[in-house]
Amino acid sequence: MAVGGKVLPPLGAIPGVRAGTAMAGIRKADRRDLVVIQCDPGTTAAAVFTQSHFAAAPVIVAKAHLAQTEPRALMINTGVANAATGELGRQDAIACCEALARQLGCRTEEILPFSTGVIGERLPTAALIAGLPAAVANGRGEGWLDAAYGIMTTDTVPKAAVAQVRLGETLVGLVGIAKGSGMIHPNMATMLSFIATDVSAPRQVLKAALDLAVRSTFNAISVDGDTSTNDAVVLLATGQSGARIDDTLGPNFTRFVGSLETVCGELAHAVVRDGEGATKFVRVEVAGGRSDDECRQVANTIAQSPLVKTALFASDPNWGRILMAIGRSPIELLDPARVVVTLNGIRVFANGTVDPSYREELGQEALAGQEIVIGVDLGQGLGEATVFTCDLSYEYVRINGSYRT
Amino acid sequence: MAVGGKVLPPLGAIPGVRAGTAMAGIRKADRRDLVVIQCDPGTTAAAVFTQSHFAAAPVIVAKAHLAQTEPRALMINTGVANAATGELGRQDAIACCEALARQLGCRTEEILPFSTGVIGERLPTAALIAGLPAAVANGRGEGWLDAAYGIMTTDTVPKAAVAQVRLGETLVGLVGIAKGSGMIHPNMATMLSFIATDVSAPRQVLKAALDLAVRSTFNAISVDGDTSTNDAVVLLATGQSGARIDDTLGPNFTRFVGSLETVCGELAHAVVRDGEGATKFVRVEVAGGRSDDECRQVANTIAQSPLVKTALFASDPNWGRILMAIGRSPIELLDPARVVVTLNGIRVFANGTVDPSYREELGQEALAGQEIVIGVDLGQGLGEATVFTCDLSYEYVRINGSYRT
Repeated sequence: MAVGGKVLPPLGAIPGVRAGTAMAGIRKADRRDLVVIQCDPGTTAAAVFTQSHFAAAPVIVAKAHLAQTEPRALMINTGVANAATGELGRQDAIACCEALARQLGCRTEEILPFSTGVIGERLPTAALIAGLPAAVANGRGEGWLDAAYGIMTTDTVPKAAVAQVRLGETLVGLVGIAKGSGMIHPNMATMLSFIATDVSAPRQVLKAALDLAVRSTFNAISVDGDTSTNDAVVLLATGQSGARIDDTLGPNFTRFVGSLETVCGELAHAVVRDGEGATKFVRVEVAGGRSDDECRQVANTIAQSPLVKTALFASDPNWGRILMAIGRSPIELLDPARVVVTLNGIRVFANGTVDPSYREELGQEALAGQEIVIGVDLGQGLGEATVFTCDLSYEYVRINGSYRT
Repeated sequence: MAVGGKVLPPLGAIPGVRAGTAMAGIRKADRRDLVVIQCDPGTTAAAVFTQSHFAAAPVIVAKAHLAQTEPRALMINTGVANAATGELGRQDAIACCEALARQLGCRTEEILPFSTGVIGERLPTAALIAGLPAAVANGRGEGWLDAAYGIMTTDTVPKAAVAQVRLGETLVGLVGIAKGSGMIHPNMATMLSFIATDVSAPRQVLKAALDLAVRSTFNAISVDGDTSTNDAVVLLATGQSGARIDDTLGPNFTRFVGSLETVCGELAHAVVRDGEGATKFVRVEVAGGRSDDECRQVANTIAQSPLVKTALFASDPNWGRILMAIGRSPIELLDPARVVVTLNGIRVFANGTVDPSYREELGQEALAGQEIVIGVDLGQGLGEATVFTCDLSYEYVRINGSYRT
């Protein structure tokens, strides 16, 4: 179960967007494994993709299609990732796009394909294509919750978030869904997220907003340090609210980014809370580096350390392991005497040694709960960065150490 | 238990070196936790230390002492790492060196201290100092096996290796011991190793030999990607065989390095085989990078991936995870179509997709054993690198996720 799981908000419709699902039997029967999100003409889109050298076929095709035009539909399947499938895999993805385009009466390039699941297997295109009519037919504005269920893989809970923002006289809505639980690391994890809004904005403005929002959210989480071949975050803007954001300069842009960041943050944290085997939700807040990047390096090293993560699982305030991780961070300079470490605000380490006020019971108390903040001040500058992670449990090994079936 | 554990070789004496142990009660009673390795005057020494920003007090003191003179004794304790203990920790280490120097009738700088154990606790200097006379008194040439036991912490087996090399007319011996099982990663793991030889060589020649030998051995292993505060490898050369290596140019140097590499390799592999919770011993051989370093980056990314390591634990030929790890390696360029992946020599992936000859049963067979070779050809150059690692099991989580007691 996810750590501190929250009740999902009611997911209202975004005018101009319809989400539908189907059971296509892609890998398992009786499972919603196909989602089609249609959007009206006039919708603009922006996306961020995995940085893996082994980008999966759907990522390659989606990037190419997005470079040519704006989308009319997103087509998402679980079960098979269509990754490491070479040129045949690319052709499979295109064949599915063609089939959906025929049904919707649009061009193939107006379909963006997304896949998640097992790497190295061919996509069962016949099954997927046979499932498309149902996923199109049951598409509706209120279909987001179904879609959130439809994109789940090892996720134990669906993930969704909403926000509203007033731009001038107009209330603009945002709805987002996400999937992801393992292979989670900055620069897009095994994670798909689809967000829609009814604001009107040219693509470059949307892309600027998405890049800003992703930086501190989807790109600041780590479950296991692994990065997948299929990750993507897509933002659709239908324009049907009437509100417009024409450039990145005015207050409308700033306010919209704020709301988008809220939605992305909720979704990204939900992914970490649902991290494979997670029992703790951990914020690693590093300040005082010579740059934000230096802080990010240290935060990521702590967030990825198996020894830190197993100690968190044991609720063991073994702060020596946090120091160990700081010590091995790939940064140039560090004066141990200036480093301060806190656990949920309790000062643990300062002036090169354990803080005189620290007692083991205080650390135990700090780690007993499900929500933990590891604070680090490097004492050498004004940089800062926060990374979100979870602990490493038996359950993580069980989930990932079971033979694929 | 260690993977494919071998019977230890008989550990002969190195003329001029005596190893002794004591039960000093540093953290637990009735446990050999103190080792003193004495060497005769005329011995030269070289060492490699942790690269952690949080180098422990004994590392700081040993480096400072080694910079001043050649050592007369190595003093090693387990139980408490004397790390993250600040200036008081440094004074504690020096106090113990002073006590041993008085007993041996030498200078404080001629003692090199080493500690391993819990981070953040003060060293119980009184207990350690009280244990020194016994560890000195029972020092003997044949004391290596006792010493190998005396430096163990979470190790399940003692680790030792021997070699002989003929330099001219003279047979030179090498004996080494090591400890280490977790927090194991390139650039010195939570690992201590002490090696002695009876060759005669100036320090800079010894250091050059040690650096070469460590590169492909101790710096090419990874259990969990974590690096400790206390690691060190020390090489003592007593000169009592009469054989000399005066510089790094002649064949004597090359032959000696070969033997030293054998000893370091045996010890490093023994550490991985005894990796916390390990059930598999894994060689990750990467070739075809544009440089050795590029291959090392890819090999390390595979060796550190929790998803690869849990699949290995399950004996699951989930080669998609290997591709995922290659794909996220921090290298600049990669053409997936040129990458070839093998499992114990069986071709799994080539030309951008699964190899036509590959069948799941072949992969299962390859991973069923305890010794696994993951082969990767990047297809873009002449570089190569090999990294040794183990799998990630429930037992790893149990060992590191148990509250310290």
